[in-house]
Amino acid sequence: MKRKIYLKMHTLSDAQRIWREAFGSIRTDVEEIQTTEALGRVTAEPVFAQRSVPHYHGAAMDGIAVDAAKTFGANETSPIRLRIGQDAFPVDTGDPLPNGTNAVIMIENVFPVEGEENLVEIRQPAYPWQHVRKVGEDIVAGELILPVNHMLRPADLGALLAASVTSVKVYRRPRVWIQPTGDELVSPLDLKALDPGQIVEFNGTIIASLVKTCYGEPILREIVPDKPESIRESILEACRSGADVVLINAGSSAGSEDYTVHIIEELGTVFVHGVTMMPGKPVILGEVKGKPVVGIPGYPVSAIIAFEQFVKPLLWSLQGLSAPEPPIVSAILARKVASKLGLEEFVRVVLGRVGGELVAVPIQRGAGLITSLTRADGIVRIPHNEEGFDAGRKVDVELLKPEYAIAHNIIMIGSHDNTIDVIASELKARDSRLHLSSSNVGSLSGLLALRKGHAHLAGSHLLDTSDGTYNFSFIEKYLRGVPVRLVELVKRQQGFMLAPGNPKNIRSIHDLKRSDVRFINRQAGAGTRILFDYELQQAGISPDQIAGYDQEEYTHMAVAVAILSGRADVGMGIYAAAKALGLEFIPIAQERYDLVIREDAFTDEKIRLLMDVIKSDRFRSIVRDLGGYDPSNSGSVIGIWDGERWVERT
Amino acid sequence: MKRKIYLKMHTLSDAQRIWREAFGSIRTDVEEIQTTEALGRVTAEPVFAQRSVPHYHGAAMDGIAVDAAKTFGANETSPIRLRIGQDAFPVDTGDPLPNGTNAVIMIENVFPVEGEENLVEIRQPAYPWQHVRKVGEDIVAGELILPVNHMLRPADLGALLAASVTSVKVYRRPRVWIQPTGDELVSPLDLKALDPGQIVEFNGTIIASLVKTCYGEPILREIVPDKPESIRESILEACRSGADVVLINAGSSAGSEDYTVHIIEELGTVFVHGVTMMPGKPVILGEVKGKPVVGIPGYPVSAIIAFEQFVKPLLWSLQGLSAPEPPIVSAILARKVASKLGLEEFVRVVLGRVGGELVAVPIQRGAGLITSLTRADGIVRIPHNEEGFDAGRKVDVELLKPEYAIAHNIIMIGSHDNTIDVIASELKARDSRLHLSSSNVGSLSGLLALRKGHAHLAGSHLLDTSDGTYNFSFIEKYLRGVPVRLVELVKRQQGFMLAPGNPKNIRSIHDLKRSDVRFINRQAGAGTRILFDYELQQAGISPDQIAGYDQEEYTHMAVAVAILSGRADVGMGIYAAAKALGLEFIPIAQERYDLVIREDAFTDEKIRLLMDVIKSDRFRSIVRDLGGYDPSNSGSVIGIWDGERWVERT
Repeated sequence: MKRKIYLKMHTLSDAQRIWREAFGSIRTDVEEIQTTEALGRVTAEPVFAQRSVPHYHGAAMDGIAVDAAKTFGANETSPIRLRIGQDAFPVDTGDPLPNGTNAVIMIENVFPVEGEENLVEIRQPAYPWQHVRKVGEDIVAGELILPVNHMLRPADLGALLAASVTSVKVYRRPRVWIQPTGDELVSPLDLKALDPGQIVEFNGTIIASLVKTCYGEPILREIVPDKPESIRESILEACRSGADVVLINAGSSAGSEDYTVHIIEELGTVFVHGVTMMPGKPVILGEVKGKPVVGIPGYPVSAIIAFEQFVKPLLWSLQGLSAPEPPIVSAILARKVASKLGLEEFVRVVLGRVGGELVAVPIQRGAGLITSLTRADGIVRIPHNEEGFDAGRKVDVELLKPEYAIAHNIIMIGSHDNTIDVIASELKARDSRLHLSSSNVGSLSGLLALRKGHAHLAGSHLLDTSDGTYNFSFIEKYLRGVPVRLVELVKRQQGFMLAPGNPKNIRSIHDLKRSDVRFINRQAGAGTRILFDYELQQAGISPDQIAGYDQEEYTHMAVAVAILSGRADVGMGIYAAAKALGLEFIPIAQERYDLVIREDAFTDEKIRLLMDVIKSDRFRSIVRDLGGYDPSNSGSVIGIWDGERWVERT
Repeated sequence: MKRKIYLKMHTLSDAQRIWREAFGSIRTDVEEIQTTEALGRVTAEPVFAQRSVPHYHGAAMDGIAVDAAKTFGANETSPIRLRIGQDAFPVDTGDPLPNGTNAVIMIENVFPVEGEENLVEIRQPAYPWQHVRKVGEDIVAGELILPVNHMLRPADLGALLAASVTSVKVYRRPRVWIQPTGDELVSPLDLKALDPGQIVEFNGTIIASLVKTCYGEPILREIVPDKPESIRESILEACRSGADVVLINAGSSAGSEDYTVHIIEELGTVFVHGVTMMPGKPVILGEVKGKPVVGIPGYPVSAIIAFEQFVKPLLWSLQGLSAPEPPIVSAILARKVASKLGLEEFVRVVLGRVGGELVAVPIQRGAGLITSLTRADGIVRIPHNEEGFDAGRKVDVELLKPEYAIAHNIIMIGSHDNTIDVIASELKARDSRLHLSSSNVGSLSGLLALRKGHAHLAGSHLLDTSDGTYNFSFIEKYLRGVPVRLVELVKRQQGFMLAPGNPKNIRSIHDLKRSDVRFINRQAGAGTRILFDYELQQAGISPDQIAGYDQEEYTHMAVAVAILSGRADVGMGIYAAAKALGLEFIPIAQERYDLVIREDAFTDEKIRLLMDVIKSDRFRSIVRDLGGYDPSNSGSVIGIWDGERWVERT
């Protein structure tokens, strides 16, 4: 087995400087294209008007064109008569002024003369050039219309064409060679079954799409094996083909099959191998035959961040422009985020305005978790000289969507339930701007998030084992001073999930004591964990009798998948999760799952819409179809807590 | 001659409501497309994972896969040895875990055993599932990946493909039929000469480009004549062809050749004809065979505003989305803007941060001036119940570019000179973000704008006729309390511009008294006007002896074009303007043209770059080529005014 190390890590800003110095002043070739097709292209030289706009004196109103001098003196009492075709010429807006005329009188001020078809009367004089669009009023021939390095917008194309500039010199769109490498990759275009170890080649599509958002032209190549000769051949072919940028994905880390860095070194120069950022650390920046060559890391989040930091600025500068800057907002960090000293960390966060404060809730961080980006509203950067940020810290967030969109975010933190997906989708169906963001941290953590003002609502199903009620006593205990409404969402079936066919023949909770049975648990503070602990206690079983009691997952679906994949034999969860993955299910208890909604959010329009959704017949019908749910009471307010006492409680 | 009136004008918000009620809940068809091609498309239903991600337990590190139980107890003093192929299996990141293993030990913590090729040693235990990417860690099969009505971004496509969702149901892109009508139109694709009355058909390209920015598919038709039958046929063909939206441009006003409204009425329904907004008033909103049909006004700014207000929201809602909202900033209005009561007016403005305040400078307002949009940074709306806004008022500005871009704007108000185009383009060549915005209002108005804090700098060439100096005494008079630097830009030749061949045989200022000679003047406060008045006085001529003395233009180029187009025979201006349009030129005087720069802007990075430009050899060489300029001293600071006295003055 070989070991490899990064040659020498660079900080992000150093690496960006090196990269900019190498390629920042390179531009793609200049090409002359039809102006009609030039939307989004960038001028490669200043553009001057070929012809004035207007290029003739034209009527700016419908009416008659006259020589102003012939109208002087006209008034109500002594109107002036003009002969059509001699002193007055009917014109529509845009018509050229007939010779000898220099003003237009609006049709509203032209009066027919009874019995005289060719005479009209005017009752006020025209001043010279009145209602005339004079030559060059908009653009004068020879004038600069647009400077160099300007991205053409719809109106710009109009100005160019108006001034008879029918072709325009622009930078060619940068061609980006994207080479996926890896023996384990299967093209999404001929995807059928996937064996363990195989994965769908999806980074190529992500990167090609990112290239398009930077106005580049992606050339997404077929997958090649993770072999030195295929990577070498691809880079050389890219250079021959006239690509402007070459991206190799992946093979950029320090694993045993990562050849890219050596091949770039062999064919050209490696400027940077390894950047002290996370995700994205194993990026390679190099040059072969004068072309920029980038080794893009394999994990999708790493790939995207490496692209954003190095390829995006390059694609813009190749077209003479600076990359657009993300909007930045200031927010309160909802949870502590640890970070390794020496690494600049890109933490994905969800954003929401809760009780007047903009709150940033960090999402799971693995570089392999593509959903950490699809779910994110923004990115918080932790500089490399910090060991993380404490909860409550004011942080800058680089937005991934427009700032106004954040106002439509609903933040839900707490217990997980499969109906939350239904709510999210139904909200979006009603108003595409509404976005429900849910973090699955368990019921108790949800209540704590409400207390701290980090969420609009929490999903909760906390069983008070002393009286068999749900949530009430926990709200009394944890939400003192925090007014909330308790809204029933569903009643749902909890039970044991088992592999299809129940191969371990598990019949009751007592089978969990068997040495051949591996359990998978939920985390402390989860309602399901409390329920399971209660059931154990009732059965007189101690946790240390259960193999796997210390293996924890955060959602019903994660427990279900652990069983399906053979990691465990049994776990507790809701019927819907078992059904979704085709598992067997032994019912244990029906429980109530509620939404706990902050009073200050309850009157908000978006929460009103959420209430509409969960009260709707459509919602109830979808939820019934999931199985194991009783939504007949969904949307009922079953408690109003003013922070001190229950104002209402059913 | 016929007269037509609008049936009944609607306010913008009424018209938008009517339009939304008619078509706001219509969607285009749903089509299933390859996920790889789905960038920017919108989900037409919720999307669920087909397969978990990862779909197998895989190594998250390079190293060896082990059964964690076999590593318990390992430490530095009593390491545990594992046999490769039996207890330990080399794995790279992404490899599936071999059967019987449930943890990965990083290669860094695996030590070879000397002389034993198949043995390795570990010095610490592994915990179960350490460095393992468990099945479903990112996405669980059956889970909602994306809701309905979600526009697909690069990372979304990655998540879909990762979860084996290789095709996705999306709304078809709306097809937009764009029919230019007009006998006067000439296609930009076969443009040669243009007769008076002919104009380039450029609205079609503007509208097609706007459609693309709304993710629609434009179908730009060939021009048809302004005849009822051709408009009727086009609408019917559009309906047959499966277009989702039909746009007729123009023929929507109340002119004598405007048939569109009658044809829509004949074929379907007219909901709105005329909206109380400006520009864009003559818009028509209707329906034919269930399709939305819009009569788009003919003036380009009207066309764009009508599109933005009615077509854009429709194209987004056809795809299940709300149109993005423009960012809004608050700014101080630099000049009073009058507005007609009863009309909602869209005033285009240039924006700049001057002395800490964001200032909005209104641009000329004609609906026919396409440059009023290409030059604009934003739009100020004056509601229909206001008669305009006073200067100094705090106004909301809808931005046409990202907010951060405004920081790179340089605002120049004052005298016009052709070298300003050169500066603008050279700045953009150095840094594409730099944008020089110039308003041509004359030297004196430029100084007043500096005083009010409405500009960073002014161009000025004010002759003090008492001593023959330029600018110094005017700064003393008008900029008391406002520190500025006076920077020489160029010396330039002023003189009389004449039609080619000098047909009126004009030789000196005395010819201007001739009754067959029409003069064209510059506005009061312009340096050139002051110079001309001085020359008149020296020659003992009174203004009322000059025909056309009261005809004013705001720029040298406008004066030149007035002469070229035959509106006038002679005017005063700079040599460069005469040369640009091929006019004859009689030199009268050389004058100094300076930049007056606010002291608080002088240290700003963008002004530093402007100074770099005007001191550069490249700038001087381009300016010399324009003709009539002496730029040998360009960029010299010739005066430092502290608001009370000249600290330095050459």
